Amino acid sequence: MAYHFSNILGHFIIDNSFKEIRKAQKESKDVKIEEVPQQKLSIVLELFKDKKYFTEFYEKNIDISKQALKKSVTEDQLIIQAISNVQELDKICNILTKRLREWYSWYNPELCEEVKDNEKFAELVLTEKRGKESMGADLDKPHLDEMNLLAKEIGEMFQLRKTHEAYLQKVLLDYCPNLVELAGVTISAKLIELGKSLKHLALLPASTIQLLGAEKALFRHIKTGARSPKYGVIFAHPLIQNSKRSDRGKASRMLADKLSLCARLDFFKGEFKAKEFRKELEEKLR
Amino acid sequence: MAYHFSNILGHFIIDNSFKEIRKAQKESKDVKIEEVPQQKLSIVLELFKDKKYFTEFYEKNIDISKQALKKSVTEDQLIIQAISNVQELDKICNILTKRLREWYSWYNPELCEEVKDNEKFAELVLTEKRGKESMGADLDKPHLDEMNLLAKEIGEMFQLRKTHEAYLQKVLLDYCPNLVELAGVTISAKLIELGKSLKHLALLPASTIQLLGAEKALFRHIKTGARSPKYGVIFAHPLIQNSKRSDRGKASRMLADKLSLCARLDFFKGEFKAKEFRKELEEKLR
Repeated sequence: MAYHFSNILGHFIIDNSFKEIRKAQKESKDVKIEEVPQQKLSIVLELFKDKKYFTEFYEKNIDISKQALKKSVTEDQLIIQAISNVQELDKICNILTKRLREWYSWYNPELCEEVKDNEKFAELVLTEKRGKESMGADLDKPHLDEMNLLAKEIGEMFQLRKTHEAYLQKVLLDYCPNLVELAGVTISAKLIELGKSLKHLALLPASTIQLLGAEKALFRHIKTGARSPKYGVIFAHPLIQNSKRSDRGKASRMLADKLSLCARLDFFKGEFKAKEFRKELEEKLR
Repeated sequence: MAYHFSNILGHFIIDNSFKEIRKAQKESKDVKIEEVPQQKLSIVLELFKDKKYFTEFYEKNIDISKQALKKSVTEDQLIIQAISNVQELDKICNILTKRLREWYSWYNPELCEEVKDNEKFAELVLTEKRGKESMGADLDKPHLDEMNLLAKEIGEMFQLRKTHEAYLQKVLLDYCPNLVELAGVTISAKLIELGKSLKHLALLPASTIQLLGAEKALFRHIKTGARSPKYGVIFAHPLIQNSKRSDRGKASRMLADKLSLCARLDFFKGEFKAKEFRKELEEKLR
């Protein structure tokens, strides 16, 4: 943010200075503006000898920069934050459930073995009573309370993750309907995160979109000559998951192609064509 | 758990077999038990020729092992789980607050700069309204809702951490009053975690207790001849924190000495002497 700020500030100081110069020019007619930037700058600096311009310049610039900063926040940034948080919540849910499994196994090891799904496990810790034949220790209530609190917290984390996803879906459907229709919520959000913004994503070639998220493998390929990656985050897409292993590279290339078109349609506010694209891909990949 | 189980199971199979042999001995008087273990085992194996013993052995052993396992859970394990979870929660709170700061700074960058304390920040996100002159973007309610949910979750994490600490204090005051009195809740729990159990901690020499938690530095010292570490987790103790830098090594040695005594007093259910120890240390280190 700070970097962003100073950047825009610098830009506006130069920009505003010219406005001031033009104003001064109109008034006094004795300040000449040459087309050479070096000279322009020296004229501006000349004006700063007079202190009366300086404070005004400074305050106005700060104001205008603040306004510009206000307007510079787009949905891209919010989408990026939300999808990053979803990814972090995934990690955190895993860490905490692992701890709960270890902790709870002193009381009811059978449940920990039985239930493999993390979300369900946290729920069952709260609701289910253990069998009488359990080989876990008979712990007192204070000990169990701590585990239950942790289980409850894990449940809420999973809930938060779902809320974030619903929010993302809502925002993305507005922002890039084509991309979401073809790629789904998670993949579209990840693509925007990796492409930094929808604008930048729309400007990327399809082959880059195909490999977004596979940077590590790509650089290993360039550096050591290992096999080149075939897909990045789009690997999770059902069209690729459902094709044969030998067809996946092809499927990924075709999908990236259409995704790139979708990103462009969305950024330049084009028509809604994703459904046709999807049908086309499905027919070709059958 | 599984390893623990098979360990105890093996132990009890041997143990029970001897009981069976003795029973058989009493009944038939023709099985002799020599004092050589090798022979003992062969006698046991002899009995397994008869299938009737086998199923009974097996079932009884499973039963007895389950019982033993039930009893084998001590407070040590629960303390270790709780303090590990506290440490994980610390990390998680940091990760999530970092994310919230980045996310919220699009709306209210001033608050993110102002409030350095993580817990307070999460609270203020929920309660405080931003100033009119903020240079953050004017976001709609749906966007802000997600941030608020995250802030709420962070607040609950901090709360859970506090509950865990209160629980630890209660358990530790019962389990090792001397250690807690001298070292405080967090350090005692960490010492038990690093020593694996209070029993093992009581058996460790004071010099090892002094360096628990500084294993990395210790092995670097042994391997490369770098300077040896002076303290492990006990570094956070106020007696060490408050001494001069040059006295810290000495303070740490004296403190570890007393902590080792405390662990022994606690494990062997001795008197409560920690207050005297504390006074003694404070006088010496003044």
